[in-house]
Amino acid sequence: MYKCALILAAGQGKRIKSDLPKVLHKVCGKEMVNHVIDTLRKSKIEDINVIVGKGAELVKSNTSSRNVSYSLQEEQLGTGHAVKCAMEFLKDKSGTVAVFNGDAPLIKEDTIVKLFKIHEENNNSATILTSILDDASGYGRIIRSGDEVLKIVEHKDCNEEELKVKEINSGIYCFEIEKLVECLGNLSTNNSQGEYYLTDVIEMLKDKAERVGALVIDHEETLGVNSRLQLSEVEAILRKRINNKHLDNGITIIDPMTTYIGADVEIGQDTIIYPGNVLEGNTKIGKGCTLFPNSRINNSIIGKNVEIQSSVILDSSVGNNTTVGPFAYIRPESVVGDNVRIGDFVEIKKSTIGNNTKVSHLTYVGDSEVGESCNFGCGTVTVNYDGTNKHKTVIGNNSFIGCNTNLISPVTIEDNSYIAAGSTITNDVHSGELAVARAKQRNIEGWVDKRGLIKKK
Amino acid sequence: MYKCALILAAGQGKRIKSDLPKVLHKVCGKEMVNHVIDTLRKSKIEDINVIVGKGAELVKSNTSSRNVSYSLQEEQLGTGHAVKCAMEFLKDKSGTVAVFNGDAPLIKEDTIVKLFKIHEENNNSATILTSILDDASGYGRIIRSGDEVLKIVEHKDCNEEELKVKEINSGIYCFEIEKLVECLGNLSTNNSQGEYYLTDVIEMLKDKAERVGALVIDHEETLGVNSRLQLSEVEAILRKRINNKHLDNGITIIDPMTTYIGADVEIGQDTIIYPGNVLEGNTKIGKGCTLFPNSRINNSIIGKNVEIQSSVILDSSVGNNTTVGPFAYIRPESVVGDNVRIGDFVEIKKSTIGNNTKVSHLTYVGDSEVGESCNFGCGTVTVNYDGTNKHKTVIGNNSFIGCNTNLISPVTIEDNSYIAAGSTITNDVHSGELAVARAKQRNIEGWVDKRGLIKKK
Amino acid sequence: MYKCALILAAGQGKRIKSDLPKVLHKVCGKEMVNHVIDTLRKSKIEDINVIVGKGAELVKSNTSSRNVSYSLQEEQLGTGHAVKCAMEFLKDKSGTVAVFNGDAPLIKEDTIVKLFKIHEENNNSATILTSILDDASGYGRIIRSGDEVLKIVEHKDCNEEELKVKEINSGIYCFEIEKLVECLGNLSTNNSQGEYYLTDVIEMLKDKAERVGALVIDHEETLGVNSRLQLSEVEAILRKRINNKHLDNGITIIDPMTTYIGADVEIGQDTIIYPGNVLEGNTKIGKGCTLFPNSRINNSIIGKNVEIQSSVILDSSVGNNTTVGPFAYIRPESVVGDNVRIGDFVEIKKSTIGNNTKVSHLTYVGDSEVGESCNFGCGTVTVNYDGTNKHKTVIGNNSFIGCNTNLISPVTIEDNSYIAAGSTITNDVHSGELAVARAKQRNIEGWVDKRGLIKKK
Repeated sequence: MYKCALILAAGQGKRIKSDLPKVLHKVCGKEMVNHVIDTLRKSKIEDINVIVGKGAELVKSNTSSRNVSYSLQEEQLGTGHAVKCAMEFLKDKSGTVAVFNGDAPLIKEDTIVKLFKIHEENNNSATILTSILDDASGYGRIIRSGDEVLKIVEHKDCNEEELKVKEINSGIYCFEIEKLVECLGNLSTNNSQGEYYLTDVIEMLKDKAERVGALVIDHEETLGVNSRLQLSEVEAILRKRINNKHLDNGITIIDPMTTYIGADVEIGQDTIIYPGNVLEGNTKIGKGCTLFPNSRINNSIIGKNVEIQSSVILDSSVGNNTTVGPFAYIRPESVVGDNVRIGDFVEIKKSTIGNNTKVSHLTYVGDSEVGESCNFGCGTVTVNYDGTNKHKTVIGNNSFIGCNTNLISPVTIEDNSYIAAGSTITNDVHSGELAVARAKQRNIEGWVDKRGLIKKK
Repeated sequence: MYKCALILAAGQGKRIKSDLPKVLHKVCGKEMVNHVIDTLRKSKIEDINVIVGKGAELVKSNTSSRNVSYSLQEEQLGTGHAVKCAMEFLKDKSGTVAVFNGDAPLIKEDTIVKLFKIHEENNNSATILTSILDDASGYGRIIRSGDEVLKIVEHKDCNEEELKVKEINSGIYCFEIEKLVECLGNLSTNNSQGEYYLTDVIEMLKDKAERVGALVIDHEETLGVNSRLQLSEVEAILRKRINNKHLDNGITIIDPMTTYIGADVEIGQDTIIYPGNVLEGNTKIGKGCTLFPNSRINNSIIGKNVEIQSSVILDSSVGNNTTVGPFAYIRPESVVGDNVRIGDFVEIKKSTIGNNTKVSHLTYVGDSEVGESCNFGCGTVTVNYDGTNKHKTVIGNNSFIGCNTNLISPVTIEDNSYIAAGSTITNDVHSGELAVARAKQRNIEGWVDKRGLIKKK
Repeated sequence: MYKCALILAAGQGKRIKSDLPKVLHKVCGKEMVNHVIDTLRKSKIEDINVIVGKGAELVKSNTSSRNVSYSLQEEQLGTGHAVKCAMEFLKDKSGTVAVFNGDAPLIKEDTIVKLFKIHEENNNSATILTSILDDASGYGRIIRSGDEVLKIVEHKDCNEEELKVKEINSGIYCFEIEKLVECLGNLSTNNSQGEYYLTDVIEMLKDKAERVGALVIDHEETLGVNSRLQLSEVEAILRKRINNKHLDNGITIIDPMTTYIGADVEIGQDTIIYPGNVLEGNTKIGKGCTLFPNSRINNSIIGKNVEIQSSVILDSSVGNNTTVGPFAYIRPESVVGDNVRIGDFVEIKKSTIGNNTKVSHLTYVGDSEVGESCNFGCGTVTVNYDGTNKHKTVIGNNSFIGCNTNLISPVTIEDNSYIAAGSTITNDVHSGELAVARAKQRNIEGWVDKRGLIKKK
């Protein structure tokens, strides 16, 4: 049967006090609304309509890579109104539509699959995700008759009997599309808030003797975010969930409380992760790596048996058996080979570093192609910028670049060449050559004494 | 009515095992006694007397900027004795005095205001801060008759009925000054510890048919610190309280458990703080900043939309839209402008950096005045120390400082000048000049082969 | 009486999903099996036999420094079978043997001492470590008659009465050696799992009217690790236990939850530890140090009043009153003196740094002997590698090494000598000499304008 989903993403979220629309606030490195979209896609829901309002253009641009459609809710007049705004999307469709909240990013793939499944198997007109709470104060109560739901009563409208009900409405539903559409036309604002309530649809369906069911799940999955405190709480829950998955896969996380792994990161078995690491975006870490404390790795591919320590790696790849850091900075579009050493206080920017090459310390390699088995002395600089343009440095295999040298690009250092320490190289160096650009040393006897600089011990 | 406060700060704190007086141990970056002083000042209590004893001079010097007076308690003979030592401060005063503990830093401004208010409104002679505990073992119990307090009974002196009382004495009080002074004269050491108990004053007042009231508050606020474990527990409570305030103000704190913000730090809305950041002293962070993980920022002013990553910034200011790090070190008395880049492995020390200037990597700028829109190549050093004295470097606007250059100060690089990479500059460079100090490159053909250094691939 | 111990360390640990044998996974920086060995040694149990199986060679090599003997359990046929494999070790011995689990590293010294003590004092043939659990599901139950244990019944074999028993078997025991040996011969695999159960020995002993006792302890101490999640949980428990010990000793740990201190680290009183520090191996930290956030210190000796900030220190020593970092990297075999400054972006490798020497920034000192009261300018490099061999640099006392200089080793810089900034030094510098190797500065007037590079402000 045809399945689609609406995501309510139009609210401003006053309590979150932000210039950014609420659903674009990130949890574990990803916008809340994109968590919902991605989880829906994993559940094989392809046709997704996002109902935008506050900051509509921003929400659109931040979800645009995910191939969803949009409805516009210009004014925020309640959940029923939001769904009415998607009428264009729903009309002439038949099948099942589910309604999710863009500020409730913890919903699980399994739950979505199960929600659609029981909705369809039971021939429900509507199916509500619900939870059981010890203290249900403030929540809409689920009033049942056996398996079926009769209605949802808002807390403030509950009678004494209804107040005792512990089953609450999560605000997530499945509907038979045609029946939902029919009801939406009849929604009114005839209530204390003057808003269109989506929950009123349930009673309308019951009035038509339609079947309404419910699926009870853990409340945690449906938690919504209305404040920065809740944002941090939801982040903590998702962090734990993500880390438990990696623990299950045979990764050692020394302190799962203080290890921050994005929802889409992949990690190979027997990798050991020290505290304070932040792994973001589409990062993949190979098997048997050691991530010493306090690195940030964003959108990067790390090979097997790599050691990384207190470094920042962005949009790059690092080969097998390579070591990085401590205190290295690998900037975007860098490709670092196997068995490479990127040592302390080294910056690599938009460069290729061949296998077995050592860039051990205090060095900058930018806009460069570096071959295999090279050795960079300490303090080497590829001088890639002349104040106007950036140029390229090419270094062949087996080259030895002496300490504190400048390679003024564009320049080519061919295979098997040597640069003497302290040289500023402006011309190409050919294979087998030693290049040197150095002033002669003079020692001036007695100078220190003459200047009166001898220190007393 | 006249209001003043005493802070008991004379105890050694044996269990904390320290050479430092207990009240000088820090919580969220501030000495415990100074937390109490600062909270009193926020509550508009201006006249504060700190009763010092152990490490008196250290306590005085660490509170001296806060304009308080001191009484000396040479021997520690109990809380009553401590207050007796402030007799000089109290005599001839009339109004209300409150007594606080210098090792209980969690007391809130609101509570202090309310304590004085109910004390005065009820015409109490004494008002006691109390708490209700499920397990009151070890605490002095509050024995009441209705609204009024009859006495405080120490745990070990409780009868069976009194042991059941769950209301305990927090050790914080308000007194009518003249009545307190009168009672202090009559305190005795006629008890098992041979100490003067301040709690005895309550019974003395009741014997005179004076009115004694109580204000019940959350026990957490009155927690005292007697060990390093308690110090860390109080720190965790205050950390949470501080972070919740910032969350409420619209700041994203990805993990409030591992974000360490000092009590006096201010942060603008929509700033995002990654884990592992430590913000100390009178630091102010502007709106819309991103603090990537693991920086320490002390006593610094950070503008709007600044990005800081894994850096240390001390006693400096950083302008709007500037980026700092990863791995930068900005030392005291630096003034960094707007749209500046202070990149990786860069140290700025006691320098001014003009707007739009880039100091991208592996560079030291010390004792310098740098203009706007300059570009520092990688590996640049301002040579500010000749082994005896420090000198100044002045760099004009739009200057281009080539990589791996030395600027031997004192030296001036005028506007619009260029320094060639690898140069050591000892003389001033005038506007529009290119300065170069470089040896000529020689390539020695066949050298590598002759030396037998060709590597086999 | 003679005492010895067996440690069961032969299991693979499927759920931990690792190429590494389970008992070699680390908790607080030390392999689980080595925690058990070290705790046994502290309890004065000298004769320890480790029963190895899966990954036997790896387990042996990782425990080899601890002077234990080994038995090989080639197939894993149950706990009884494991102990049978140690028959060679046990035979002809008389006294007490205790059986521990190599994957249960939280057992305490005191408990071991007490277990042997009550075993011997009560003339038990066997003594079982047990715990009381609210929910004992899944555990073997201890069936008692008064002080004596009658038998241990596995959960699945419990009758209704036995299921109610809350006392469980921890899997740790003491046995009278000769009686254990006698029973081991009679163990059978006549059970549902087809394994030899060590617990069957208890019933055999009771059948012979032997006395079997039990020692009830906190369940936490006997927790076994079967998954990475449990590994992280056990780590958190041990972390807390270690940190509480240091708090008790008068160390300030600002956040004990995020401070990672190895089991064997020693720390002096009044040292302050910021969050995010990782102290490993046999590290010793002196009194009164400040460890600012985010350093990793492994196997190093740090003096008194040292300040360390965001640095990595490995297998080295650092003297009193020295400061390190932020962002320093001290590599193995370095000896740093008193009152030294190892500043930002400095690497020290296999070098000695004399007292009062300053290596302030962006400098590499490798394979060097550096005297006292030297000053290293920014950007100094000891050029210790010529592409083939490493050479040594020797620097005398009171030397001044200018910025961005190269010292091409082997080279000696004698006492009281100066190196001019920007020099590449290939020859020795004698006492009192100034060495300079520098090209002359030329300023080319009008160059910037001619090149059309004047920027518009």
